Formats: sequence, structure tokens, C-alpha cells
Amino acid sequence: MRVEQLVSEPAYTFGGRPAALTVAPGTVVELSTEDCFGGAVRGVDDLPSQVCQFPYLNPVTGPIAVEGAEPGDTVAVHFVDIRPRRDWAISSTFPHFGALTATHTTAMLHDALPERVWRYEVDVERWVCRFLARSSDFSVELPLDPMHGTVGVAPAASEVIMSITPGAHGGNMDTPEMRAGTTAYFGVNVPGALISLGDGHCRQGEGEVCGTAVEAAMSTVVVVDLIKGVPCPWPRLEDDRYLMSTGSARPLEDAFRISQHDLVGWTGELLGLDALDAYQLVSQAGLAPAGNVVDTNYTMLAKIAKDIVAPQAFDGVHNRLRATAREYLAQR
Amino acid sequence: MRVEQLVSEPAYTFGGRPAALTVAPGTVVELSTEDCFGGAVRGVDDLPSQVCQFPYLNPVTGPIAVEGAEPGDTVAVHFVDIRPRRDWAISSTFPHFGALTATHTTAMLHDALPERVWRYEVDVERWVCRFLARSSDFSVELPLDPMHGTVGVAPAASEVIMSITPGAHGGNMDTPEMRAGTTAYFGVNVPGALISLGDGHCRQGEGEVCGTAVEAAMSTVVVVDLIKGVPCPWPRLEDDRYLMSTGSARPLEDAFRISQHDLVGWTGELLGLDALDAYQLVSQAGLAPAGNVVDTNYTMLAKIAKDIVAPQAFDGVHNRLRATAREYLAQR
Amino acid sequence: MRVEQLVSEPAYTFGGRPAALTVAPGTVVELSTEDCFGGAVRGVDDLPSQVCQFPYLNPVTGPIAVEGAEPGDTVAVHFVDIRPRRDWAISSTFPHFGALTATHTTAMLHDALPERVWRYEVDVERWVCRFLARSSDFSVELPLDPMHGTVGVAPAASEVIMSITPGAHGGNMDTPEMRAGTTAYFGVNVPGALISLGDGHCRQGEGEVCGTAVEAAMSTVVVVDLIKGVPCPWPRLEDDRYLMSTGSARPLEDAFRISQHDLVGWTGELLGLDALDAYQLVSQAGLAPAGNVVDTNYTMLAKIAKDIVAPQAFDGVHNRLRATAREYLAQR
Amino acid sequence: MRVEQLVSEPAYTFGGRPAALTVAPGTVVELSTEDCFGGAVRGVDDLPSQVCQFPYLNPVTGPIAVEGAEPGDTVAVHFVDIRPRRDWAISSTFPHFGALTATHTTAMLHDALPERVWRYEVDVERWVCRFLARSSDFSVELPLDPMHGTVGVAPAASEVIMSITPGAHGGNMDTPEMRAGTTAYFGVNVPGALISLGDGHCRQGEGEVCGTAVEAAMSTVVVVDLIKGVPCPWPRLEDDRYLMSTGSARPLEDAFRISQHDLVGWTGELLGLDALDAYQLVSQAGLAPAGNVVDTNYTMLAKIAKDIVAPQAFDGVHNRLRATAREYLAQR
Repeated sequence: MRVEQLVSEPAYTFGGRPAALTVAPGTVVELSTEDCFGGAVRGVDDLPSQVCQFPYLNPVTGPIAVEGAEPGDTVAVHFVDIRPRRDWAISSTFPHFGALTATHTTAMLHDALPERVWRYEVDVERWVCRFLARSSDFSVELPLDPMHGTVGVAPAASEVIMSITPGAHGGNMDTPEMRAGTTAYFGVNVPGALISLGDGHCRQGEGEVCGTAVEAAMSTVVVVDLIKGVPCPWPRLEDDRYLMSTGSARPLEDAFRISQHDLVGWTGELLGLDALDAYQLVSQAGLAPAGNVVDTNYTMLAKIAKDIVAPQAFDGVHNRLRATAREYLAQR
Repeated sequence: MRVEQLVSEPAYTFGGRPAALTVAPGTVVELSTEDCFGGAVRGVDDLPSQVCQFPYLNPVTGPIAVEGAEPGDTVAVHFVDIRPRRDWAISSTFPHFGALTATHTTAMLHDALPERVWRYEVDVERWVCRFLARSSDFSVELPLDPMHGTVGVAPAASEVIMSITPGAHGGNMDTPEMRAGTTAYFGVNVPGALISLGDGHCRQGEGEVCGTAVEAAMSTVVVVDLIKGVPCPWPRLEDDRYLMSTGSARPLEDAFRISQHDLVGWTGELLGLDALDAYQLVSQAGLAPAGNVVDTNYTMLAKIAKDIVAPQAFDGVHNRLRATAREYLAQR
Repeated sequence: MRVEQLVSEPAYTFGGRPAALTVAPGTVVELSTEDCFGGAVRGVDDLPSQVCQFPYLNPVTGPIAVEGAEPGDTVAVHFVDIRPRRDWAISSTFPHFGALTATHTTAMLHDALPERVWRYEVDVERWVCRFLARSSDFSVELPLDPMHGTVGVAPAASEVIMSITPGAHGGNMDTPEMRAGTTAYFGVNVPGALISLGDGHCRQGEGEVCGTAVEAAMSTVVVVDLIKGVPCPWPRLEDDRYLMSTGSARPLEDAFRISQHDLVGWTGELLGLDALDAYQLVSQAGLAPAGNVVDTNYTMLAKIAKDIVAPQAFDGVHNRLRATAREYLAQR
Repeated sequence: MRVEQLVSEPAYTFGGRPAALTVAPGTVVELSTEDCFGGAVRGVDDLPSQVCQFPYLNPVTGPIAVEGAEPGDTVAVHFVDIRPRRDWAISSTFPHFGALTATHTTAMLHDALPERVWRYEVDVERWVCRFLARSSDFSVELPLDPMHGTVGVAPAASEVIMSITPGAHGGNMDTPEMRAGTTAYFGVNVPGALISLGDGHCRQGEGEVCGTAVEAAMSTVVVVDLIKGVPCPWPRLEDDRYLMSTGSARPLEDAFRISQHDLVGWTGELLGLDALDAYQLVSQAGLAPAGNVVDTNYTMLAKIAKDIVAPQAFDGVHNRLRATAREYLAQR
């Protein structure tokens, strides 16, 4: 088991910069990420629009180049551990950003909604975070469910894309499924794939409705692997129970269509079904939660239980990565 | 405990016809529903486009008038039992209908996808149904999770709306959450509310991707109740664990927005939070699964766990109806 | 030339009521319509939300039954004259209605935009109306271009649909093309077709952005005709220069798709082209203005010049109705 | 009057490369562009999917740096002349691209529509091009109306964006309004602005429905100018009759909202109206044609006649550029 540390300058795009670390397939990588505010919002009086400066939002760590990765291959990123680095985390509204507000593209004549910051208390021992209302004394503890909102590879067609945009290259999908125990698959567009990640969340509701989650700096461990000769047109996820396809687009039904179309194809391939039979099976057995409905593209997931479809996708890489993760955690 | 039987002619709209049964609040109603094909598709050679005739699809049973229900009130429909009436059920593709096909509104130059029928074996004893692929020998058992795709009340503004359309009046929301144990709430638009229901599914994936679920005739028992003086602008659901708001619209992000907006308002009201605090809490603790992404309007759900928000919505009517249900089931 | 007068109670739906007048094909019908506020807004202090009561908005006159019209046929409504009945007209914003505001379906946490009324001076002699700004002394004269926002027939499937909703039955399409000199075609869903119309506008920009046009009571003359055995799946328009297809749906691209799909089919049929050749020709020669982007469905138009496509659609009925119109106007 | 020639390697992105030519504001620039197929499709048997290679589509010429242009400024690109360079031009369908076909994002289970190429005869003398049907003998002459589908500047936030994507930086808006006589305005994101253009069309219908226009290599002359200290958040156009705002987004209603929102703001500023008064005036006097409804973002235009709003936008730069254009054309 090879273990490497990744240290990199904060970056704000996918694509457009060289590898910060090059690793062999199967390597465990330890890294840390800053929160989506670049750590600049530390309390309820730090308004993001004042302390952060567009476009220096949502920093990502990386990129990691995977040796041997070429266009047409798929890289796997298995999350071994995602751990908040501070005893607080931040959420906020942000002017003209969110699902229930006018935005720069859903352009309206309303003034922006008020900008408000919430500071969560984070207790890693008890694995909870505490929401404190700003307008009343109400507070409630919520379980930690740490995840990364932003994970992806360098895009195709020489594009350089802001880290806040999700797409076929991954990016800011903002799905709570990107937690420890999950393997994410991305199609490779450039040699080395160039994996970056960031935007850690202590937890996040589906849809990330107000535009931000419980944003936190993270200490994260991943295992990176390579599947040669197998393409992956849209990011896919796998955990011990589910296969998941993602779609990121607007309108939201197109994100849904992409994810379902991909899962239908994947299911058909794994089970030897034609397209209509796979369509039917996914229609009756699938789940379809929202990822985000706030970013420059929206993200939907299509999920199907592995006990229905197949124990082994991508030639069983998930199970191998799980084993590596266990070995790493046992040694740490 | 009052128990009534409802028998009615099949109908194809919400609105436009008188009550088939009038009951006092709190009454248990036993009824049966036909499948969305009107029972005309019985095997894989019965193509819906040949044996069914538009617009005589998706028949509903009812309406049930609730004594004392007036515009401005809310009616509650608690599902006590939903039980397939046959040992088979049907699913199919249907020309120009479904999420991954050109439709009459997402109009394209493609020919329709092939029309195909799947006949599921239903085993109520073992509480499973069996999918049999048409293009191969593959088959798989799936758990039964019976539900009603279509439940609602007469619409506002003197409208008469096809039963296949979901909206503020309920209708064909096609969410798997409409199962036994769930209470559905609808704002009342006309005296008596005029509740109808149909479109039983042995089970359904989120999104109802291919356009139909595992469609079955059902024997169903509901308890109907009335909450005076409390409006309900969009249908809401409650089970033992979750409060759920629905939104039905196009594009899909508007269905999402409606459902989240309603849940934010509901959460704020139950917890005494202002809009931004409720927005924040729902953003971190909420779930957002798709209902349907195939009907004339799409349906999204916004869910929040009752242990986070509140044990008691609508003055605790869900718990009272659960008690009635238990009493009924004990006596049956 | 037969001439009839239509007088009817104001109605607020398409479908759901009997004919107010039955005429033979080819009959000239004189009628009047009230404005979308039912005449209740007469000055800048009459706020619609106070003086109008939902759902009693957008009254239509009719319906007119056409003798012999059966499902599968098409009725033609040719506009001979549309003339404002008063020397003033009204426009307004309306809470939660319009293209640049949160609405009940594009649900957001913003307060409603301010409600404001504009009273236009209408000078039929000089064929102009005058906009007077409310926030300054600015005013400007705009040419009159009178039209009807709402024209349609009883819907299919026994539906009864609010007059503010556009769809396959016509309804509130709110396109400025519905002016004198235009023939509108509607597929017949019920015996007699049952044509209603209302929502006169002194003029309207494309998109009807703020939600209302320069709303006015109208004296209107139409000629009604019947094309037997020819269906018309979505409303079509024809004037001396253009053939036009309409599509009404959400999202707006579906309204676009419907209208273009219909125009491609229509063009192919008139010119004997296959679908791809017609697609190509429409792509290079077509126009695509917005109708409305504010109503419960949005409306797009697809237009192609008759000198490119064909002088004669629907067997030349437009030219015959133009002749009838000229005859009527000469005699008046 | 300064006149410069621009020669550059074909490029496929906005952003990501240095200036090919640097000019002072007010300079006339002569350049040529290749068609969207890179000239590789020359006849009906050259299928784009075979002779072109993704992502090497839609080459642009440039970029031109404007001396003194800084973020916060606006650059003006006035089209003096756009002239087809060959006596033929090409249009085609392309698999999974177009408004009436399943695409990679509006993902469906349909096979791709057939790929077909049309070769237009172009007669610059008579200023016409000829459509020849592929499925029949039909042919028709259409007037030339040469334009550039793709014009824009380097994007903000260090992004590098494929030339086929329209957005706030301009890009592939595909509006027929980008013709000789039009001035296009773009907000500057990087020093020099870095203007590129390409994708010449002999003519194009609104919406570019099939995905391609009458694609042609062009000899083009522009005048480039600079407006210091005035931002331009979305591309704007001006010709002798209209002011026009553009919006590029999905769904199409967001493209509409952006364009209308911008035009409302612009109108208000020019006339000294508050937002509601400007909203009202645009609502009654505006036009709203589609640009493209096929690209990775859709484009809508919002237009208002200059005789209603204002003779002088951007301090009259359009008139000055018109004068330069006349001077250039007189000397040529």
C-alpha cells in the first residue's frame, strides 16, 4: 500500500494547471481542503459578499495525476475518510444564489434576499453539528455526514471550468452521496486525468437549497485507481449498496434524463438486457434524489440497489478499494 | 369507528362530477381501484395504444365528499391498506410518453420508441413481484411497496382536470411515498373537497422513468378527516418519520422550488423560525426525491425528518388517524 | 354573407358551458369583449389584487358553436376588426405574476414586486396609445396594434381549463399576431368546437413580460369557418405573409419545440418534403418570436413566409375569409 | 482611419490564448473566417461526424486585443461587411444535436436522427442562396443575410470555454441580428478584451432549429472600439433601428429572463425610469425573438425600437462606428 501526501495551492478551476502530485494507480492520498469560502468566513458577521472575492470561491486541492491514465479510461476516487478540521463550520445565504431566490440567470427585478451567516458547532467526537437559529433561540443537533461537494477531473476540449460548475467532468455536483465509503468514477479527458477536490460539507440536504451546505475545511483520505480502456461519459458513484449515475445540466429534467439514461445503459450492460428492459427495471427499482439545484448546472442522481443489479461494476474495483481503505485505516 | 364502502363508476378527471359517497370526518372508507389501463392490458401482447382509448386512461374511484369541508380547510386522507387485487400486474412503455423519449410536448422528429408490455407476477403472500425481461431470460424479484399514483381533490376555479395531471389539487403525483401508513393533506377548493384516487402501483421507482409503474388494481382502505380553517396550498404528506411537501410543475426545478418553498414555510411555522432560518435548516436536513418526471406536470418532494422538525403537524391528526387505522386493522 | 351578433355572459374557462350562439360556417360574428380585469380597473389607484377576485379574471365571450364541426375537423377564426371600445386602457403588474418576478410556481422567498397600474390614453382616430410613466414625467406614444390574447375552443378529454391557460386548445396564447387580418385555426375537440375569445390588447410586446398588455375592452368582428376532415393538433395562424404554428408548454424550449415541430410538419406537407428537408428549410427561413412567457403555459410561435412555402394552406380558406372580411367592411 | 489585417490560426475556445493582433480603439480590422466545419464538409457526401473531429468544430479567428481595454470597460465590435468567400455553403443535421432531436443532455433512448448534408449554391452577385431538397426536386432561393454566429471576448474567472457555447462573454449566440450594420457590445473580463469571431452564416432562421445554419467561410470587416468605465454584463447589440439585449442560458425562459432583465435596466437608465416603469414600457414595446435553441446554452434577444427609447446608447458609439464604416466602404 502506497500512501502519498498532496499539498497544493488553492485553485478555482478544473483544467488549466499542471499536476501537483503524480501517483500510481492504487495509491492512498492524504490531503486537506479549505471550505468554499476559502476560510474567510469565521463568524456570523463575516458576510461572504464582503470577505470573499469572486471568482476566488470554492477552492479545490490538486490536481492529482494518475500514472497511465489516458482519454478513454476511467479513474476511480474512493473516499476513505473525510474529517472536519475545525470545531465550527459555516453556512450562509449569498446574494442572487440559491434555489429560492432570483439569480443572475433566473433574472428578476427583486432585490437580493438578505445575506445571513450561520456558524455551526462541530463535535467530531460525538459526530454531530449544531444548528443555531439566528432569529430565535432554537437550536438542534444534526448528525455529521461529511462529504465533498466538488470532485472531478480536467474537462475535455481544452476547457477550463470554474470549480463551482458541475458537468461531465464532475466538479461541483454537491451530492451527499460523495461520502467516505463511496467510490466515484470519472472518464479521463487528458493524460493523467488530473483529479481535484474540495468543498467539504459536514452535511448537506438534497438540493443544497439555500446554496451552501455546512461548509468545512476537511482532512481527507482517498484511494485513486485506474480502469483502462473503459470510458465513463458522466460521473458514476458506487457504495456498498448502490450504483449511482449522475447528470448535471439545466433544466433539472435534463440532469434527471442524463442520470437515468446513464443508469439504464449501465444496468443493461451489467445484466445483459436490451435498452427497453433496462429502462423498465430502472423505472421500478430506481431512486432519483436531487444533488444540487443551485449551481450553474443542476445535478440529479439515479440509483439502483446492487443486490438487484449486480454485485460487480467496473470489474469489482469498488471492493478492492474498500479493502485498501480498510488496510489503511487499520494501520493509521 | 365508522366504516363505509365506496363504489363508483370509473372517472377520468378531478372535478366535474358529484360525490359518489359522503362521509363524516374520521370515517374509514373501503374501496377498490382499477389499474391505469382500465384493466384492458392483461398480457404482453395487449399493447396499450391498441386496447386503451385516449382519454379513457388512469381511471379514478370517487369522489368522496367530506361533510363540512369548505374552501380554506384541509382534508386528510390516511392510507390504511393498499393491496393488489390480482396475482399479476402490468407495466409498459407507451408511444411518446416517458422521461427518455420524445413526447407531444418535448416534440422531436424521432419515431416513437417501441411499445412493450411487461407482466409482473405478484405474490401477496410473499409480498414480492417478479420482473421478467422481454429480451432475455433475466428475471428478478422486487419487494412489493403498494401505493397510489393518483390522489386528489376537485380543483379550484371550476376547472376539470384530467386524472393524469398532477397539480395543486393533487392528482397524478406518482410518488412512492403514497403508501399505507402515509397521511396525505389537500387544500379544499369546493364544498366537500371531493376526493378521488386511483392508479395503484405494486411498486414504483422514483421518477416513474418509463412512464408507468407496476400497475395494479387495488383493494384500498383509507381514513378521511378534516382540518377546519387551515389551508394547504400544495399537497403535503406525513408518515411516522417524515413531513413532506410536494410541488408539481414544469420545468422540474419549479416542482422542486414549490416543494422546497412549501417545506420551508411549514418548517418555519412549526418551529417558530423566520423564513431564512427555516430555509437554512431545510437546506441541511432535507431530502429531495423525484416523484414523477413523465406526467403533464412533474412532481418533486421535499422531506424533513419529524425528529428534527416537530412531532406534531396539523395538530397531530396523523397520529389520530394511525390509531384509527390500527383499530380498523385489529377488527378486520 | 351572414352576419350575427354574439352576446354572452362573461365566462372564465374553455369548456364546461353550452354554446351562446350557433352559426353556419362562413358567418360573420360581431361581438364585444371586456378587458382582462373585467373592467374593474379604471385608474392607477384601482389595484387588481383589490378590485378583482381570483379566479374571475380574463373573461371570455362565447362560446360560438360552428354547425357541423366535429372532432377531427378544424375551425378557422378570421379577425376582421378589433377596435378598442374606450379612450383608455390599463396595464399593471400583479403580485407573483410576470416574467421577472417570483411566482407561485417559480416559488421563491422574495416578497412580491410592487403592484402598479398604468392607464394608457387611447386615441382610435390617430391609432395610438400613450404610455405615461408613474415614476417620472416621461411619456411616449405607441402605435395601436389591437389583438386578442385569448382565443380558443373547448378542450379535449372533457377538461375545463381556466381562460388564462394556453394549450393545444388555444386559450391565452397572448401573441401579438392575433390581430385583424389574421386567421386562427383550431382543432375541434367537441361538437360545434365552441369558440370563445377575450383579453383584448391595444398592443403587446412579445413575451408580455410584465404579465399584462395594454388591456382594453374591444368591439370585434370575426368570420368563422370550418375545414372538414382536417385535424390541427396545435393552433395555427395565417396572415397575408406568414404561416405560423404555436406551441404552449413549459419549459419555454418545449413551447419552441412544439411550434417548430408543427411548422416542420406543415411545411413538409405543403411542399412535399420529407421531415429532414422540411426541418432544414424551416431552420434557415423561419422566425421564432415569443408569445407569452408569463402564463401558466408559455407560448412560442414558429413562422415562415408564404412566398417561400406555399400560397395556399388549408385549401385557401384564408383568402376566402379575407374576401368575406373585405365584403363586410365595405358594407359596414 | 486605421485599417489592420488579422490573420490567426484557427482556435476552438474563448480564452486560453494570447492576442493575434493588438489594435487601437477605432481601428478597422479585415479578417476571414472558416465555416463551422473547418471547411471539411464540401458536398452532400461529406458527413460531419466522419470528416470533422470533436472538439475541432466551430473555429474562431482572433483574438484581437483592444489597447486600453480593462475589466469594467465595454468593447464594441461593429460589423462593416460580411461576405461569403465561396459560391457554396453547407448545412447539415448532426447526430444528437439540434432542437428537435434527443441530445447528450436531453438524453433519450432514441437512435440519432439521420445525418444529412445540404449544399447551398451561393450567388453573391444576386445576393441569394439556393436550398436544394435532398428528398425531392424542390428548390427555392432565399435572400442572403450574412452574419456571424460566434462573436465574443475572453471569459471571466480564468475560464476557457468552447467556441460553441454562448454566455455572458458572447460566444456562439447564433442570432441573425449579428449582421453588417450591427454593433455588438461585450463587457471586458481580461486586459485587451481578446475578441474572437467565426461561424459565418449566409443566413439563419431564428432558433437555428436543426443545429446549423447556411454555414460559410466569410471575408469580414469590423471596426473595434472601446467604451471606458462602462460595464456590460451581457452582450448587447445595436443597429440603426433597435437596441437589443441578449441572454444565454438554459432553460430557455432563463435566457429570456436575462435578456429582458437587461433590456429593462438599459431602458430605465436611458430614459430615467424606475425599474417598474421600464418593465412596463418594454412589456408593451419590446420584441423577443429566439437566437439559438440548440447550443449548450440557448440564446434569446430582447429588442426595443430606438425611436421609442433613445437615439443614443453607449454615448453614441454606434453612430460613430457607422460613420467609420461608411468611410471605409467608400475608400475600398
